[in-house]
Amino acid sequence: MEVNIDLQKERKSATFETEKLTEILYNGKTMVRRRRYLQNIIFQDKYINSFTPWWNRERDESYDTAVKKSVYINKLLRDLNITNGVEQFYIREAAACQESNPLGLHQVMFIPTIEKQGTKEQIAKYVEPAKQYKILGTYAQTELGHGTFIRGLETTATYDPNTEEFIINSPTLSSMKYWPGSMGKTCNYVILMAQLYSQGKRHGIHAFVVQIRSLKDHTPLPGISVGDIGNKLGYGGMDNGYLMFNNYRVPRDSMLMRYAKVEKDGTYLPPQNAKVAYGSMVYIRALIVGDCARSLAQACCITTRYSAVRRQTEIRPGGEEPQVIDYQTQQEKIFPLLSAAYAFLFTGNMMVQEYTRINADMEKGRFDEMQVLHALAAGLKAFSSDTASNGIDKLRMACGGHGYSHASGIPKIWANITPACTYEGENTVMYLQCARYLVKQYAQAATGQKLVGFMSYLNNPVKQRSALNDALSMSDLIEAYEHTAARLIKVAATRMQSMMKGGMSVEEARNKCAVPMVYAAKAHCQAYVVKMFNTVANRPSLDTSVARVLQTLCKLYAVYGINQRLGEFIQDGFLDGQQADMILNKTLSLFAEIRPNAVALVDAFDYPDEILQSCIGRYDGRVYEALYEYAKTSPLNKQDVHDSYYTTLKPLMKGELKFDTPTARL
Amino acid sequence: MEVNIDLQKERKSATFETEKLTEILYNGKTMVRRRRYLQNIIFQDKYINSFTPWWNRERDESYDTAVKKSVYINKLLRDLNITNGVEQFYIREAAACQESNPLGLHQVMFIPTIEKQGTKEQIAKYVEPAKQYKILGTYAQTELGHGTFIRGLETTATYDPNTEEFIINSPTLSSMKYWPGSMGKTCNYVILMAQLYSQGKRHGIHAFVVQIRSLKDHTPLPGISVGDIGNKLGYGGMDNGYLMFNNYRVPRDSMLMRYAKVEKDGTYLPPQNAKVAYGSMVYIRALIVGDCARSLAQACCITTRYSAVRRQTEIRPGGEEPQVIDYQTQQEKIFPLLSAAYAFLFTGNMMVQEYTRINADMEKGRFDEMQVLHALAAGLKAFSSDTASNGIDKLRMACGGHGYSHASGIPKIWANITPACTYEGENTVMYLQCARYLVKQYAQAATGQKLVGFMSYLNNPVKQRSALNDALSMSDLIEAYEHTAARLIKVAATRMQSMMKGGMSVEEARNKCAVPMVYAAKAHCQAYVVKMFNTVANRPSLDTSVARVLQTLCKLYAVYGINQRLGEFIQDGFLDGQQADMILNKTLSLFAEIRPNAVALVDAFDYPDEILQSCIGRYDGRVYEALYEYAKTSPLNKQDVHDSYYTTLKPLMKGELKFDTPTARL
Repeated sequence: MEVNIDLQKERKSATFETEKLTEILYNGKTMVRRRRYLQNIIFQDKYINSFTPWWNRERDESYDTAVKKSVYINKLLRDLNITNGVEQFYIREAAACQESNPLGLHQVMFIPTIEKQGTKEQIAKYVEPAKQYKILGTYAQTELGHGTFIRGLETTATYDPNTEEFIINSPTLSSMKYWPGSMGKTCNYVILMAQLYSQGKRHGIHAFVVQIRSLKDHTPLPGISVGDIGNKLGYGGMDNGYLMFNNYRVPRDSMLMRYAKVEKDGTYLPPQNAKVAYGSMVYIRALIVGDCARSLAQACCITTRYSAVRRQTEIRPGGEEPQVIDYQTQQEKIFPLLSAAYAFLFTGNMMVQEYTRINADMEKGRFDEMQVLHALAAGLKAFSSDTASNGIDKLRMACGGHGYSHASGIPKIWANITPACTYEGENTVMYLQCARYLVKQYAQAATGQKLVGFMSYLNNPVKQRSALNDALSMSDLIEAYEHTAARLIKVAATRMQSMMKGGMSVEEARNKCAVPMVYAAKAHCQAYVVKMFNTVANRPSLDTSVARVLQTLCKLYAVYGINQRLGEFIQDGFLDGQQADMILNKTLSLFAEIRPNAVALVDAFDYPDEILQSCIGRYDGRVYEALYEYAKTSPLNKQDVHDSYYTTLKPLMKGELKFDTPTARL
Repeated sequence: MEVNIDLQKERKSATFETEKLTEILYNGKTMVRRRRYLQNIIFQDKYINSFTPWWNRERDESYDTAVKKSVYINKLLRDLNITNGVEQFYIREAAACQESNPLGLHQVMFIPTIEKQGTKEQIAKYVEPAKQYKILGTYAQTELGHGTFIRGLETTATYDPNTEEFIINSPTLSSMKYWPGSMGKTCNYVILMAQLYSQGKRHGIHAFVVQIRSLKDHTPLPGISVGDIGNKLGYGGMDNGYLMFNNYRVPRDSMLMRYAKVEKDGTYLPPQNAKVAYGSMVYIRALIVGDCARSLAQACCITTRYSAVRRQTEIRPGGEEPQVIDYQTQQEKIFPLLSAAYAFLFTGNMMVQEYTRINADMEKGRFDEMQVLHALAAGLKAFSSDTASNGIDKLRMACGGHGYSHASGIPKIWANITPACTYEGENTVMYLQCARYLVKQYAQAATGQKLVGFMSYLNNPVKQRSALNDALSMSDLIEAYEHTAARLIKVAATRMQSMMKGGMSVEEARNKCAVPMVYAAKAHCQAYVVKMFNTVANRPSLDTSVARVLQTLCKLYAVYGINQRLGEFIQDGFLDGQQADMILNKTLSLFAEIRPNAVALVDAFDYPDEILQSCIGRYDGRVYEALYEYAKTSPLNKQDVHDSYYTTLKPLMKGELKFDTPTARL
């Protein structure tokens, strides 16, 4: 098929080689080639292509398809001996992009938790059968009444030394497990997070391996109520479930006892080191930054291509209608988010690298940097998911009416990523967690202590005025970000201190400063992202033309961020009104600078049509043909004349209406 | 059922009588009573209650239900002789809140357009049969390739004097009508907007009444292709359609000829007055402000009640977990939007009143004020729908994980209102339309001309510094809003002027200033809303305690708005850093002030549970019971053991997997 002429021109006008940027994003030429090779296996796979398209799947079919695809993909990975995690991800991405995976938690939560927290015997008992899918597990933590606040979970596991069993109960309605993925229908085992009681004492939350369904016929075991929690905004392929226990007994070795233990007589032995799970939380949150980046990148790709193809509103009467991407307002909607997508892709990668480095240090007993990273990961998980969730919705609306149709593909991307604002720690709680650390670090810096890693900017001497001039150098911009972050941390910290001096408890003061704390955390996170992006964009190894376009994007990310939160940068006079004008002018001129590279920048994400599944984001730009084809797939078009005509409209038109139940009377 | 104890306390702690505020919102005691009476007719209606709940309707059922409900409601209104528009709305709201209405466009677009633009003969021919539902119509304007830019529509109607017919064609793929509601399956007639050609000349867009389906069997007529456009993010009950014409002939009297005419020989007579449709556009946009307000109010009601019931995270170790509404960060999410909901409810009402007054003036030939209102309505339609769409999503996320479930009811509200950002004029285009008027008015004010109505603030002398002190009086705040709006209009205007002096065409300059123009329009709109809210909150007729709480909300609306767009207010030094601190402090202290009235403020919206249809927004606060009941309705729970177990999971566990098509091979 011929590529739309506008898109052809766009691609020719780019100032850099798309492929070179793609190679940076995917770690080199070899991996780019390998990724495409793996994708093509999927694109040519008859079974994967045999399902009803996602936009027409009803709930039941949605789940059934997700199960079948998951099982098939796992078999395929084994048959093809693809063991590398990144490669496995590429296969999944190609086969079920932005679709739910009912066997995912089995692999990323059920098995790893047993491996990390189980004894050797427990690992032997559960992990091998789980890897062979003889049992199917998930992770049952969230309850109706408690999510992010894990200590508040109410499910109980009470040890009975007489039978050497735990009695598991759901003592209240709100203690019902609710939301865990794959729990409603798929799994027969769960890692159950429950309040441990032994010898009449409560010992806090512990993990148990608990069978919930029969291995013979998959029916719920006696004492268990389990089912799906019903329809949601998205995640139709996932059986998020509910689960209740009524005096359900499990043997003593159901409790994962590598760290904490309950002995036969009920003696409780607490874990040696409470910070065991610290690292993996950081890691998962770092991965979420990458998920958000990819989702944002896909939406940017769709909106940018469509905006290059779409023409609207003659600027001069009778003249040609411009591509909508030529409108400054459209550029304002897309380009800052495009820069954010790149920023988060790089930040996500950097965080995983940092994690790997620091984790190695931690093994040697050095916790400092992991704490910096832990606070940052909490904040960045929130910052990136907020940006992605709001940004993707903005991009959807930048596609006008067509964005609202599933034909655009954007609602699906959005519905799949917006839960990232809630799962793995609700975003506001994450910001506050980050902020509490910042406030502590601020206090230490104030006493002259040298801070490590990315916190060290709090040691910088406070400057009154920025030297920013119309060159808008990155060093001046980064200084403005660090200055403002430091100032907002100071504002939150001094506000808290003065409240506590006034007699308020630390808890109350914390709550009364929570909004300024969130501001501080956001500023800290964005400062980090600007800095990381700048580091990547200035790597000496980069091809010159690629470096130039990344530096332009990075500068846009920096100036747009200031323009958006301008008040924070100028309130103390660090930047003045004139410098604010420079920031706005630079923002607008950067739009014009990025404009010729916009399509190439989204092409570089290298998402084939089969992954984007968007009528309006197609590589060939044949959007109207695709929208027409999409329309034909409508469930309502199975009949030319819909049944509603016979049952309702025809009687209405003939004046022969009858309803099954009598009309209410006054 | 007993009401949750926390909600009971909340209601007792309110400083005003909820019912008195409800009476203000619904125009007095009598109307409040009447509204409830009408609602109860619906709530007790067996037929209306006989459908699958909306959250479990698949697409086909969704449409079928919408048709049946629409037809039934119309019959009910006739049987009960309810002819008042507001009362009809209350019935519909009770029967199908936030659900699509496939007969809606028949009533609000098809019939009125013929009445306004048709000749007497045309009215006689079409309106009476339409009112009796002998024909079913809709309004076919939007095409695949063009939406907001109406002049760009491509469908052609070419007059053939030999047969005295118009030949209607879809000359390109992008000329396909796409999106019009009720067009896919429901209607047999459309008002077709098409480019008129006669005697070899193009005469622009005109309206035609065109039959598209047979009155005998509802099949599409020869020369017509029509169908549904497929699944969307929401609007599942609506058959948004596509429609194409292939040399389709209609008689000459199909063109609505009250204003423009084509004579038998093909002579074209243009309309006398081009501004005929001006008023009704203003009116519809004013109504959208109200729609947005109501949607926002419903979401606020759900989130506020849930936040009063939900408890999370002990503040002191071992202490009771607070209601989440006690967290400052939660207040920051809800209260500003609650104030916006009230602000928009009042603004929407005021605009309809203004419209009525000014429309009467216009009949006397005075257009000035209608132009002010036209610009304002464009801007406010965008401003209110942006706020509602983003705000409702924020409220959803403020409900944590449960917000993501359809059980919360929020995704439905959001999916139904977010298209308001696009329909009746895409929001950015609306802001720019508003801004262009503002820039013109600014130029007139600069020459000393007195401006009318709400534009008159541009005549105010420019002050350098605000006198705002820690009393934060509304007059100082309003002055700050007007000053900033005037300044941003000036920035956009002078920027444009200097570009044009530099040789740029007006069109190019307009585009290069588009982003600052949008800033100006938003500032203008928000200034208006603040002012209107303040006017209502200070009506002498108000009950004292109600007035106090409305004034508090209004102040929050004003200070929060400044805090959000702080840069704009302090960039020129009108407010300084210290005043900015006052604004933030006041914002936080207003949260605390509103806190005890929060539940009463959302109760005052007077949305019964049957309308909200939210497990977590229930009046009685029994959210966990409701969420459990909701879960039981899941389509996946029809079987305790899902079919996927037999087809896929069991073979997986037994190691007996087989797939219909062979696994791909490397």
